[in-house]
Amino acid sequence: MKRAIYPGSFDPVTNGHLNVIQRASKLFDELYIGVLINSAKNPLFSIDERVSMLKEETKDLPNVKIISFKGLLVDYCKENDICTIVRGLRAVTDFEYELQIAQTNHVMAPEVETIFLTTSLEYAYLSSSIVKEIASYQGDISKTVPPYVAKCITEKYASKQRDYK
Amino acid sequence: MKRAIYPGSFDPVTNGHLNVIQRASKLFDELYIGVLINSAKNPLFSIDERVSMLKEETKDLPNVKIISFKGLLVDYCKENDICTIVRGLRAVTDFEYELQIAQTNHVMAPEVETIFLTTSLEYAYLSSSIVKEIASYQGDISKTVPPYVAKCITEKYASKQRDYK
Amino acid sequence: MKRAIYPGSFDPVTNGHLNVIQRASKLFDELYIGVLINSAKNPLFSIDERVSMLKEETKDLPNVKIISFKGLLVDYCKENDICTIVRGLRAVTDFEYELQIAQTNHVMAPEVETIFLTTSLEYAYLSSSIVKEIASYQGDISKTVPPYVAKCITEKYASKQRDYK
Amino acid sequence: MKRAIYPGSFDPVTNGHLNVIQRASKLFDELYIGVLINSAKNPLFSIDERVSMLKEETKDLPNVKIISFKGLLVDYCKENDICTIVRGLRAVTDFEYELQIAQTNHVMAPEVETIFLTTSLEYAYLSSSIVKEIASYQGDISKTVPPYVAKCITEKYASKQRDYK
Amino acid sequence: MKRAIYPGSFDPVTNGHLNVIQRASKLFDELYIGVLINSAKNPLFSIDERVSMLKEETKDLPNVKIISFKGLLVDYCKENDICTIVRGLRAVTDFEYELQIAQTNHVMAPEVETIFLTTSLEYAYLSSSIVKEIASYQGDISKTVPPYVAKCITEKYASKQRDYK
Amino acid sequence: MKRAIYPGSFDPVTNGHLNVIQRASKLFDELYIGVLINSAKNPLFSIDERVSMLKEETKDLPNVKIISFKGLLVDYCKENDICTIVRGLRAVTDFEYELQIAQTNHVMAPEVETIFLTTSLEYAYLSSSIVKEIASYQGDISKTVPPYVAKCITEKYASKQRDYK
Repeated sequence: MKRAIYPGSFDPVTNGHLNVIQRASKLFDELYIGVLINSAKNPLFSIDERVSMLKEETKDLPNVKIISFKGLLVDYCKENDICTIVRGLRAVTDFEYELQIAQTNHVMAPEVETIFLTTSLEYAYLSSSIVKEIASYQGDISKTVPPYVAKCITEKYASKQRDYK
Repeated sequence: MKRAIYPGSFDPVTNGHLNVIQRASKLFDELYIGVLINSAKNPLFSIDERVSMLKEETKDLPNVKIISFKGLLVDYCKENDICTIVRGLRAVTDFEYELQIAQTNHVMAPEVETIFLTTSLEYAYLSSSIVKEIASYQGDISKTVPPYVAKCITEKYASKQRDYK
Repeated sequence: MKRAIYPGSFDPVTNGHLNVIQRASKLFDELYIGVLINSAKNPLFSIDERVSMLKEETKDLPNVKIISFKGLLVDYCKENDICTIVRGLRAVTDFEYELQIAQTNHVMAPEVETIFLTTSLEYAYLSSSIVKEIASYQGDISKTVPPYVAKCITEKYASKQRDYK
Repeated sequence: MKRAIYPGSFDPVTNGHLNVIQRASKLFDELYIGVLINSAKNPLFSIDERVSMLKEETKDLPNVKIISFKGLLVDYCKENDICTIVRGLRAVTDFEYELQIAQTNHVMAPEVETIFLTTSLEYAYLSSSIVKEIASYQGDISKTVPPYVAKCITEKYASKQRDYK
Repeated sequence: MKRAIYPGSFDPVTNGHLNVIQRASKLFDELYIGVLINSAKNPLFSIDERVSMLKEETKDLPNVKIISFKGLLVDYCKENDICTIVRGLRAVTDFEYELQIAQTNHVMAPEVETIFLTTSLEYAYLSSSIVKEIASYQGDISKTVPPYVAKCITEKYASKQRDYK
Repeated sequence: MKRAIYPGSFDPVTNGHLNVIQRASKLFDELYIGVLINSAKNPLFSIDERVSMLKEETKDLPNVKIISFKGLLVDYCKENDICTIVRGLRAVTDFEYELQIAQTNHVMAPEVETIFLTTSLEYAYLSSSIVKEIASYQGDISKTVPPYVAKCITEKYASKQRDYK
């Protein structure tokens, strides 16, 4: 059985991520979506919230499994019989950075392959940061994330605003 | 009447910015220079100081107006009958980032166009950050900003030094 | 009156070109579409055919005028009171080449400005060459060019095939 | 059963291509290597010679099949139940071009996915053209192609030299 | 006598840096390795520790001298009769940034030349940050830094861990 | 004694090339300018004419020597005790191509180093092709090549024109 992983922060998952997930799920018997537990960054959503949004949005894809992980991705792959890392590519600056990560992972674990899918044109401009920036100014994010995620973001910023008062 | 906006942090305005402003002011009936009020960053100059330096340096361009704004740029454009966003391009990494912003703005407000001018060769290396870095080490910034701005920067760093004592 | 020119080979005009033309026509009082007469290349359509297809596809844009020209673009601009060159940008490799052309034109004629529009995402992959390559294999080009241009291309390849027999 | 295709000119196959073939063959049940029959270019080896070298160099990979094809790649994929196109990526300029091809193929056949593998670092500099250029000056190509292919190239240039006399 | 400088943070020195140092040391009579004293960043190693690791790893290169410096690099060059700045290049994003720095230095001190060496393929993926990230998860860094530096990194993270308890 | 080579087509030498030559001549004891004899291309000037223009324009640089060569550059380097190849860099697309050549040369001759100088900003847009294109339309090339080269180009195109009659 061929198992792959699509790792990321998913803070939160966007329509661009979901497009990659849907397409990658057809290429492998099992696709893990790996939410990276990274204490350093300052996330909007907790790991549990991010996992929960991903579960909601992928519930119709039976071979997709949402997990969170800590430490080196290649170590997680080796411990869980994952043969392939899936990454989405949007632009040249993405590509350079992704290439560096892929080469580093290859040196540490040559048996784990990295493949790249190009993001669909309509989502080429999207990132979690841009969605959050628009939402923080009450801009319209309905074309960038699914309705449930949009609702979570709106509630989160509303509760943040209450905290400041 | 065609009104455009050239948005930025302008912390502080450089010769490169002024080159774009002069050229863009010829393309439109009215050109707004929009200083972005962004609470997150750690600026050298206050919004008022940045607006004031821009006013000084553009006083000979009658169709240029300096404003500051908060929130989403496309919202400001819609509220102020601005049909075009002007951006300067220096390099490839600039271009990728600018393209992402332009596409996001286009999705949120298709009626607002974004146009790009390429920075003149002699200013292709310039950025506000580099000017500030050079100035912080007492380097010569006379080729990078106009004399009045250079004076403001020097005074600012001198007053900072006094504060540390 | 502000007059601009959008130069190119337009062999043939694509939906991507038309998207740039529609958007650029709103920025200027008059927009020339300049078909470059370049003896060196091996075109599919004659200059007259290319001009004729452009006229057909822009007939609803009253301030757009189709012309053909020979020699240096900046010379044509100076002789015809054209203050601005409009170019579409698709990708990084485009950008580098376009930058080189824009800087050369700027050195030869500093009074002529070059502005760039980014191609809409849905047409970001399009080029005349790709349309012709697909058509040469009887592929479906209906999403890449308007119906009239598609008909011209099909007829052209059919007549070419007859010539070979 | 998941069937993929790795298309190219393979004029001739290099160590870089073989590295991609070995890695891609592990990701799919069946991997076609598709030699593009392209009348326009001026190849060193005939289609038959290129297919024959590929067969020799992949004889130990049981799920790899060498074929040649004419026309649009996506049409070949649809006629042969191929769900995935595999491409190798070496550098930024590669990436831009590959992205354009992938997006065009996606518009023509959304059911066919394109995935990218990054070339191993040691082959990142390699291309068929560079191998041929070195060989044409009697340079050492032993690190760039397998021994059998090196022998074919040497014989080809020797026979070419005889033809000129 | 021709004296050059290879500046950087070297926090810590990697095999990629050492490859550049070895090759650059052959091009000049004397090569300074300049550790930048930059109060802003949050380094893993102190300036003294970085200088000490560099001294250890370059002890067999008699014309290499390790120094640390504060302020503008071009000022240091002028005060120490250094005619050339040496930089390593890994990727496109590197290149754009490096170009900006080189042009700025050229404007401030035209008599100081900047030359670039490309990083060897086997180290093209390497950076101090990536080494530290791998080490922070107890990953294998033996292919990325020399043994002595690896030992220093391991000890540093072990002592950090103790501090947290 | 350190001897370097700056190879190219120099068809014809431009101000950009001369800027690189002047700067590189200060870095080495002896600098060869190597005009590549390449039968495949369709040059404007003969090898002798190109060598002659280079000699004229570098006559004040005593350690510069103009030569022409055939075959692989690294073979020429090894036969002539040349330790370093000098290349000028203008843009990202340049960089990718140059990197490929440098890595290939490194694999074939690890003892020959390649260094890159960035072209001065004022010549960043320049190439021999662009100079020839402008000249072929009687455009002003006085800012792109030295007076003697400009005269040679003008005479060459005048004599070409006579041949066509």
